[in-house]
Amino acid sequence: MADQPDIPLRILVNGLAATQVAAMDRGLMYGDGVFRTIRIADGRPRWWPDHLAKLAEDCARLGLDCPDVARLDEDLARIEPLPIRGVLRLTVTRGDGPRGYRPPSPQRCTRILACWAAGDPPYPGEGLNIRVCDLRLARQPALAGIKHLNRLENVLARAEWNDPSIAEGILLDQSGRVVSGVMSNLFTWRDGRLQTPSLRLCGVAGVARARLMRLAAEEGMIVEETDFDLATLLTADEVMLTNSLFGLRRVAGLGARIWPEPLISPRLMELLDA
Amino acid sequence: MADQPDIPLRILVNGLAATQVAAMDRGLMYGDGVFRTIRIADGRPRWWPDHLAKLAEDCARLGLDCPDVARLDEDLARIEPLPIRGVLRLTVTRGDGPRGYRPPSPQRCTRILACWAAGDPPYPGEGLNIRVCDLRLARQPALAGIKHLNRLENVLARAEWNDPSIAEGILLDQSGRVVSGVMSNLFTWRDGRLQTPSLRLCGVAGVARARLMRLAAEEGMIVEETDFDLATLLTADEVMLTNSLFGLRRVAGLGARIWPEPLISPRLMELLDA
Repeated sequence: MADQPDIPLRILVNGLAATQVAAMDRGLMYGDGVFRTIRIADGRPRWWPDHLAKLAEDCARLGLDCPDVARLDEDLARIEPLPIRGVLRLTVTRGDGPRGYRPPSPQRCTRILACWAAGDPPYPGEGLNIRVCDLRLARQPALAGIKHLNRLENVLARAEWNDPSIAEGILLDQSGRVVSGVMSNLFTWRDGRLQTPSLRLCGVAGVARARLMRLAAEEGMIVEETDFDLATLLTADEVMLTNSLFGLRRVAGLGARIWPEPLISPRLMELLDA
Repeated sequence: MADQPDIPLRILVNGLAATQVAAMDRGLMYGDGVFRTIRIADGRPRWWPDHLAKLAEDCARLGLDCPDVARLDEDLARIEPLPIRGVLRLTVTRGDGPRGYRPPSPQRCTRILACWAAGDPPYPGEGLNIRVCDLRLARQPALAGIKHLNRLENVLARAEWNDPSIAEGILLDQSGRVVSGVMSNLFTWRDGRLQTPSLRLCGVAGVARARLMRLAAEEGMIVEETDFDLATLLTADEVMLTNSLFGLRRVAGLGARIWPEPLISPRLMELLDA
């Protein structure tokens, strides 16, 4: 993501141009909120309805009043024109309220929409070199799957490497199950089946992952959510990563293990990008 | 904490009076930071050196550049006069930087100091009624003990009850070990020993807990960090909770289990408040 400049082009807070939020916002006090990272392609937010649906689902899991679709569409219209290519981040927090963990009632949520210009998605066709992170994800079914603002595990995992030739790190959970990448979901292709780690105990269930599972199943592929460890991952016929920014990328190397040729990934990329 | 008003009397951001922080601060984007909740008594922040030491320790655990003591003392001088009785919250985040989990280098941390007026600490002498939370804490040794900004578990646990007669909820971990309260640490008195759950896998190691352990040991008491489950907790001779705001309070009831009389708690309250 090195080609993305630091400074957002525009930020809206609760529908108004702004650069700041309340210092006592629960998003900052407690990480009490959720977010979406959305690719802007041809000046439009890609998979916008999917992102709004996932946002609503994540808010519901946390008992957070989600802004309605009309309101978020209005915000989107106000932040336009978007850059031709870029990144949009949508954050919803539980807003401010009395000090203390207890959620306020009623809630006045905070909506933050920010857009950045960016080049083409990083890591095109040739395949990614990745590593395995030392940090092991905690198992927390109450938060599993949600893209919430409590992302210190991802921050610590991403801080483990500086080598720019390493595009992503694989995260295992405390018992050694493969969960995902630091900023992506993971798929394997094995014996003609598309498999992805189940995320009932930890990890973020991304929009690209859900789309790929649905589209591949519609194509008649066998798609499975399952549990496997690192040794099993290394025996996969092909390993792929998905996220909303780069779509799908195949893994070319993980330590000494090389996957020299793509197998199913070109077809899946085509499916996902259609 | 119902008697604490919502609005801070004063907020300083990086040493300057402010009410807002950058919308792209990593404290909000990822919960990438730590904080302290400090009691103000007689217009002074109680246990200030302990809080600064713990802040530095927590920052070091996260690879976060901690502001030095002189800088934080300067902030404290600028926010004065403090209310006679109240609460001070000190937050340090990794500041802003390029989008993405990777910590920026160099870091420009954000310091937020806010104070509230408040009455006497809640829950005086008579003993607290508490409950057991449904939410089970995740085990994450990389974050255990740290008072970081990823507090969704505490938010969800605190959202479990509305009954104002319930002062606190007990948190167990995924395997049923007792860890702490939602906003406090826990001690038991059993056969003449002071015991507190070990926090190597989850929980926040508070300043009041550390002070009490040290002071009790200096008094010649046997003080142990140990692991125990809820059934064992219920057989304790006395159960007590500590935090920086209320100091130490004994538990009077947990469901059907009543502890009618204080045993060691008056002596420990005296020790801690000395």
